[in-house]
Amino acid sequence: MEEKKTTTKISEIGEFGLINKLKKTIDVNNNLIIKGIGDDSAVIKSQKDQEILMSTDILIEGIHFDTTYMSLSHVGYKSIIVNLSDICAMNAMPSQIIISLGIPNKYNVEDIEALYEGINKAARNYHVNVVGGDISGSYTGLIINVSVVGFQKKRNIVYRDGAKKGDLIVVSGDLGSSYLGLKILQREKMVLSEHKIPKFAIKDVEMKLKEYKYLIERQIKPEAKVEIVNYFKTNNINPTSMIDISDGLCSDLNHISNASGLGYKIMESKIPIHQQTKNASLDFNIDYIFAALYGGEDYELLFTIPPQQRDLIDATKKMSIIGELTEETEKRIMIGVNGEVTSIDKRGWDHFKLS
Amino acid sequence: MEEKKTTTKISEIGEFGLINKLKKTIDVNNNLIIKGIGDDSAVIKSQKDQEILMSTDILIEGIHFDTTYMSLSHVGYKSIIVNLSDICAMNAMPSQIIISLGIPNKYNVEDIEALYEGINKAARNYHVNVVGGDISGSYTGLIINVSVVGFQKKRNIVYRDGAKKGDLIVVSGDLGSSYLGLKILQREKMVLSEHKIPKFAIKDVEMKLKEYKYLIERQIKPEAKVEIVNYFKTNNINPTSMIDISDGLCSDLNHISNASGLGYKIMESKIPIHQQTKNASLDFNIDYIFAALYGGEDYELLFTIPPQQRDLIDATKKMSIIGELTEETEKRIMIGVNGEVTSIDKRGWDHFKLS
Repeated sequence: MEEKKTTTKISEIGEFGLINKLKKTIDVNNNLIIKGIGDDSAVIKSQKDQEILMSTDILIEGIHFDTTYMSLSHVGYKSIIVNLSDICAMNAMPSQIIISLGIPNKYNVEDIEALYEGINKAARNYHVNVVGGDISGSYTGLIINVSVVGFQKKRNIVYRDGAKKGDLIVVSGDLGSSYLGLKILQREKMVLSEHKIPKFAIKDVEMKLKEYKYLIERQIKPEAKVEIVNYFKTNNINPTSMIDISDGLCSDLNHISNASGLGYKIMESKIPIHQQTKNASLDFNIDYIFAALYGGEDYELLFTIPPQQRDLIDATKKMSIIGELTEETEKRIMIGVNGEVTSIDKRGWDHFKLS
Repeated sequence: MEEKKTTTKISEIGEFGLINKLKKTIDVNNNLIIKGIGDDSAVIKSQKDQEILMSTDILIEGIHFDTTYMSLSHVGYKSIIVNLSDICAMNAMPSQIIISLGIPNKYNVEDIEALYEGINKAARNYHVNVVGGDISGSYTGLIINVSVVGFQKKRNIVYRDGAKKGDLIVVSGDLGSSYLGLKILQREKMVLSEHKIPKFAIKDVEMKLKEYKYLIERQIKPEAKVEIVNYFKTNNINPTSMIDISDGLCSDLNHISNASGLGYKIMESKIPIHQQTKNASLDFNIDYIFAALYGGEDYELLFTIPPQQRDLIDATKKMSIIGELTEETEKRIMIGVNGEVTSIDKRGWDHFKLS
């Protein structure tokens, strides 16, 4: 017999009741916090000789996430990561976060607790704190807006516009995996929404989920690359420009190219692709290079370094030199595995253009 | 012949096109900004000896605003004010803002430009800057999330929990006017949504709108009380606790009462009510004291001062001493105009409880 799960309507405890419940789950063991949740605003200790970095990201149900294949705990985790990633992309350390929620009627107290389980897990993993927020109702989907504050010394902050001609283009980790993870999840949703599935088909679906575990994790539980920021510091690496790959390699490399007023040449053979990405790309008839170039949501760091620092990058297996910056802004090319030259267009993730 | 208004679909120019368009309208003349819009995060100069205040507020169409009686420019203005008000409520000065938008299909580029007209106007009026944000699609209504950062010396920051027994309770401006402004606008919407309105009725509606101009302005174009924060500084006034009145006098005074562990006694006759509020309350059969106690959205400051500072408050006509803090937390009373004692209950604005 299935155990009946108790659920509590948010209207039963009200906005302040919900805030008090969530507040108890939040870790506030941080000597930077002068005042956390519970006043008109949070108060954070300023950091001597460090500037303040601010960023924000909104996640809307049905646009940025789908709860049919993503648990609310994962949604909460990811909502924090995408924000921390923006601060890492400036070569800075994220410190404090504030969260606004728009909660539709269909969600109950336990759902929001699950969401906060993920939020709190991300906060713990990355040593940041939830210091405030706002809660409202919502007419349709769940809305999560996170704003983050981070710190860094002025001279160490890295922008998009600092790249120089001849600088090497480097990416951390691998690309295209999150996009294929999404494709797999979307397929599972489709398969499982059909009413009459033969048992062997369900088994097949489950096997595929295991086979592509890495890809799915990249999509539903991405990580911010704080360890790369730390690696730069420890190894005296000075990126000349940096961005995180949220929209796909092309779109994000074009941001650096535009901001720095330079073109680029990347080598197809150097783009880091995970074996699972290659395998899954066959299932979907997708060129895995296409997934890497245009897929997005990898949250890897894309940065440029002076050519003299090449050895420092080669020393770690976690980063790949994929090309270099060239003189003319409009010349953006990829050299294929057989030496063929492809011009890189502006395609990339755009909520309005693709919708 | 009516001139045809040109509208541009957001999909025609895309997310980045829209950002570039809006970026041009934004004033960035501020020596605090190291990096504004255009990178992964904004970079703000830290302020010597000043701590960092952070707050956020989400506004959702249909819940927090209704574009049938509120222009998008006013929505933009108000979305900034409610955030600046939170920083003022800490006795601090707002400095920088970041904005997330969720934009439904029905909105075009010109709509978002109108929204930003209001946002930019508020930013100019209050000497704050828009330094970043995020733009997404939305399935139903417009979503606006603003996060604000402000600064203040640690010793000058005022919390909700600092009130002492015997401290005087003070409010700035007047209360209940925004609530009656909302009632008037809601009535106009109802009247104008009827298809066959006799001309004299429309004239009557228009006359009422003029008659209650102040109330409507309080609802659609509230202001943050930066000048009160400045007045405190100039006149050496040290509030022991403070909050802004967004949920109604009772709800917000109860926050101070809870946080400080004290009860209170307020005098009905001392609650500041505007003459238009009194007049309009007759039209709606609403007790104007009810509007002041439970109405919300006045964005006035509610604070407490040591009794010795009474003269400094009396010296300005802009603030009213309405009562004092008493020993027992549970004793929250209002003395009526005829001396009758009313117990103040917990009612106040709560998105979930009232919906």
